[in-house]
Amino acid sequence: MLRLNRTSVTAWIAVVAVIAGLSYVLIGAAVRPASAQPNAPAARVEFTADGKLKQPVGYRKWMYIGTPLTPNDMNDGEASFPEFHEVYMDPESFAHYEKTGKFRDGTVLVKELSSVGSKEAPSGKGYFQGEFTGLETAIKDSKRFKDEPGYWAYFSFGHEYPLKKEVSKGAVASCNQCHETNAGKTDWVFSQYYPVLRAAAPK
Amino acid sequence: MLRLNRTSVTAWIAVVAVIAGLSYVLIGAAVRPASAQPNAPAARVEFTADGKLKQPVGYRKWMYIGTPLTPNDMNDGEASFPEFHEVYMDPESFAHYEKTGKFRDGTVLVKELSSVGSKEAPSGKGYFQGEFTGLETAIKDSKRFKDEPGYWAYFSFGHEYPLKKEVSKGAVASCNQCHETNAGKTDWVFSQYYPVLRAAAPK
Repeated sequence: MLRLNRTSVTAWIAVVAVIAGLSYVLIGAAVRPASAQPNAPAARVEFTADGKLKQPVGYRKWMYIGTPLTPNDMNDGEASFPEFHEVYMDPESFAHYEKTGKFRDGTVLVKELSSVGSKEAPSGKGYFQGEFTGLETAIKDSKRFKDEPGYWAYFSFGHEYPLKKEVSKGAVASCNQCHETNAGKTDWVFSQYYPVLRAAAPK
Repeated sequence: MLRLNRTSVTAWIAVVAVIAGLSYVLIGAAVRPASAQPNAPAARVEFTADGKLKQPVGYRKWMYIGTPLTPNDMNDGEASFPEFHEVYMDPESFAHYEKTGKFRDGTVLVKELSSVGSKEAPSGKGYFQGEFTGLETAIKDSKRFKDEPGYWAYFSFGHEYPLKKEVSKGAVASCNQCHETNAGKTDWVFSQYYPVLRAAAPK
């Protein structure tokens, strides 16, 4: 038999409530990554045991940063990157970029390619997206790519569907030379073509 | 004096724990919108007391759905919507779209305009984004816009900076006619130019 007065019971209830409340706060904090989009899924980029990059997933829900366009009809019928380049950045690295203006170790950029589907629409003449055609990825990783200039490596899953499921960086080593030469001052990223990035950087 | 045996105290604690647990679930559900990006901030679109739309904020962290481009140089020097149109959708409505293929009541689309900054880059000839120049919004709301075709209303905050802080829909009533005529079959949205939307819809 346990003897408790009302005060004791109330105290017990209060203790349990505080513990429950703390659990809520702590569990919430653990689930929530330090992201530009609170509680967005963590960037998932996976490599095979022999160092190939698996095709990224979920990137259309990352941070959109811009859309360069190199249409085939302006590049002798065959652009190097046909044609719309929708570029995304993993949200955690974007949050870091917002604070620091820097691309953190681990930054992942995904460039999804889509065709030009139409050159005229009710809004005027121009270029309008058609279908997805390709997928490329740039990753900055000072450990995994310690021998690459700027620690950036580049991966292409192809420019037509079906895309490759996993690719090695070796096939696209030339990427780095162009990025270093033309965008070396902004850490290998062509920020000049991305107003979203420029607006997000600290003033 | 209240007499309780250990079983009673345990029962009390259990009841409180269940209530706390339920609170966690309920509060969590309330805080957490049904979003493509779990726990992303809710879409914030505010109106003034007299029905003007305040300039949306935070939309660059919404879901990106596409980038039509109507360059001035392909539209007699002055496109109706100059020039890149980066289009975003509020994440909660996107999550609904993923499940149903429908634009839910309350859907907000933001079209941010940016200039053509360059027509040649290391990746080839084409169109490359310059600076932000304009902002437009389309909202589907069967209560607020019950008299509009499809319940969609359109707002333009201007095509040059500084943008207007708040605008009424009246100034852009002509939008609806064009959207209804040319995109009426897909609920006033030009889905044909948005592969991200088409890929997200249920199969």
